[in-house]
Amino acid sequence: MQVYLDNNRLTQVDPQVLSAMEPFLKEPYGDLHALHARGASSRKEFLKALEKLYAGLHAPEESDIFFSSGTAENHSSLLMGIYSGLILTGRKNNLIISERSDAAMMEGARFLESQGCKVHKLPVNKEGIVDPESLYDYLTPRTALVSVPMVDPESGAINPVEEIAEICRRYEVPFHTDATHALGKIPLDVQAFDPDLLSFGGEAIHAPAGIGAVYLKDSFEWMPTVFGARNPWERYRGGPLNLAGAVGLGKALELASDALEFEMEDTRDLRDRLEEELRTLPGVIPLVAWALRVPNTVLFAVEGLESELMLYELDRGGVEAYACTVQPFGNWQRRPVTEALGLDPRLKHSTVGFALSRFTTEEEIDHTVKTFKEMLEYLRSFSTFEEVPHEQK
Amino acid sequence: MQVYLDNNRLTQVDPQVLSAMEPFLKEPYGDLHALHARGASSRKEFLKALEKLYAGLHAPEESDIFFSSGTAENHSSLLMGIYSGLILTGRKNNLIISERSDAAMMEGARFLESQGCKVHKLPVNKEGIVDPESLYDYLTPRTALVSVPMVDPESGAINPVEEIAEICRRYEVPFHTDATHALGKIPLDVQAFDPDLLSFGGEAIHAPAGIGAVYLKDSFEWMPTVFGARNPWERYRGGPLNLAGAVGLGKALELASDALEFEMEDTRDLRDRLEEELRTLPGVIPLVAWALRVPNTVLFAVEGLESELMLYELDRGGVEAYACTVQPFGNWQRRPVTEALGLDPRLKHSTVGFALSRFTTEEEIDHTVKTFKEMLEYLRSFSTFEEVPHEQK
Repeated sequence: MQVYLDNNRLTQVDPQVLSAMEPFLKEPYGDLHALHARGASSRKEFLKALEKLYAGLHAPEESDIFFSSGTAENHSSLLMGIYSGLILTGRKNNLIISERSDAAMMEGARFLESQGCKVHKLPVNKEGIVDPESLYDYLTPRTALVSVPMVDPESGAINPVEEIAEICRRYEVPFHTDATHALGKIPLDVQAFDPDLLSFGGEAIHAPAGIGAVYLKDSFEWMPTVFGARNPWERYRGGPLNLAGAVGLGKALELASDALEFEMEDTRDLRDRLEEELRTLPGVIPLVAWALRVPNTVLFAVEGLESELMLYELDRGGVEAYACTVQPFGNWQRRPVTEALGLDPRLKHSTVGFALSRFTTEEEIDHTVKTFKEMLEYLRSFSTFEEVPHEQK
Repeated sequence: MQVYLDNNRLTQVDPQVLSAMEPFLKEPYGDLHALHARGASSRKEFLKALEKLYAGLHAPEESDIFFSSGTAENHSSLLMGIYSGLILTGRKNNLIISERSDAAMMEGARFLESQGCKVHKLPVNKEGIVDPESLYDYLTPRTALVSVPMVDPESGAINPVEEIAEICRRYEVPFHTDATHALGKIPLDVQAFDPDLLSFGGEAIHAPAGIGAVYLKDSFEWMPTVFGARNPWERYRGGPLNLAGAVGLGKALELASDALEFEMEDTRDLRDRLEEELRTLPGVIPLVAWALRVPNTVLFAVEGLESELMLYELDRGGVEAYACTVQPFGNWQRRPVTEALGLDPRLKHSTVGFALSRFTTEEEIDHTVKTFKEMLEYLRSFSTFEEVPHEQK
């Protein structure tokens, strides 16, 4: 049995998504700008896919959504635009992100800093989330942007983006959130919390990697840095459009909305079962367990064992899990979850996480529990970890 | 019969390319960074795809190649990098492109100009190509980059990139060329003409849109602007990698090399046949017919008829062709081919082009000739164009 539980990094493409994409991979189709039948048909398909994004995000008609190549581009393009349009002109001089923002946001921010922009990283509290109040320590009239992801893909913790958006709105600072790990896992309605920008990549919602989208509130002026867009089809991003991907992303978002209840109940049940089984094991500490989390994710720190070794051993047993990133991005590092939670610093090398999907089965979870227990027993027989009986703790 | 002859804009995905991609669309696969079996297998597949790019470009081992999301990103990322690394620092202050560069390059250059950079557009001569000698009019010690595409996708004319590269090398200015429309149509060996940068998108070589690559000579310092890459897998571009696309691009490049002879002989024969049949018709002028052209392309100006009308009528007959872009990009415009060739300015609205592929058949060309003749006769019956008998010309 091969159990894939690394779905916060990369999901399997949903067969229905692939079916939707296939016409554009199996048959010739036209460019959106082409003046012939296939071009016209492509424009129709493009509009249908775009409609699905509006529906999936509950985006108002007057807002803008455009397709991109995914998360790294979303974040990079946003930061380069902010940089060229606001920082360089001297209108703004600082940027606020989370100390747990992703690699693209982190490295982009580091670049802006190298160009003279001040970057503040909002700390994450003991629940693994950004405390909205902490914004007051950094917001200034010259803040160009606040960016906090909706969900931490390693811990699964849900950031209070409603409150953060509210504060940003009050201080008239644009607020961006990455929704990649929230879609299909928690309800999402852009009109409810009204971010200025929201973006996501398809890789975590059962669409292929290499396609994504950006939502812009109608008042937000996006400065394109992937040049060559010719309106109205491509909007803010040069082409040619990845139409197969766009259609796939539309379908994936539609399916994510349809599956929301399932993820919030059935997938959550499976996750909880996994968590309950493993948390009773000696030295196995569930992280941010009491915080608001997405229903598919559980992250543990395991005393005395290294992540790589655990992953290796789990993999031998047919279970594909993940560990938290610890390598730095240049001089910068995403702050380790364990450190943010105030745990023993050594534990940052001892995490192991499981990210389920709507395709995860009961049998797979049973197998995972069994494999984890065997792994623990086997590796502990080599390790210096000493089990302290509960009564002595 | 539906004949697709708009292959310089978008090609059909080759069935073999799709087969190569399918494992990554049908099965779960791992992220390149993941520490489990699927991650390891993805890394292997990634390296195989990368190998195919090295082979297809004849790239030396010490050079770098990385995957991107395609042409628009290639050009935008390059220009933003040049801008941040060279222009802003005051080390360089100008950029040289072609007056026939594509939308992304044109709009990116326009952005750099708005930020104080000087942009020179190399004129295109009567053969539809950039005269290398014209570089001497613009090259200065503060030129940051020269970018000229290998092939003009509208006319099919082949730019003398060897000579341009040679001049750039002599003056120590980095030279970039877009190879998108050259791959699989003319021999390409980066070691033979030694550009500093060469890039391409998959859409014109029977790979899907949304995937591309950038080749860097070992001495060239690429400044990444799609942030978040974690070496050695992603190299200069943040992820997650579109692995299905990367594998597809590798396969497409392999097939392009295999099909080169076929394109240069069989496809050329079909193109020539189409050209011979149509050029004898009254007021139908083949453009850059005597220049060095890629074997799949023929472009005409048709006196007295508008492009849109011709495309509409051809499409009704089942033939999907293209016309030259005439709409401006913001204030800038790619110079119309007809204008560059010194033809009557009105002809810029009267072009119609046919771009074949290795999938084009003899029957399709016969159908195209027939449809074109009918179109011409039908539309001319409405137009004010008067045929001047040959002996009176």
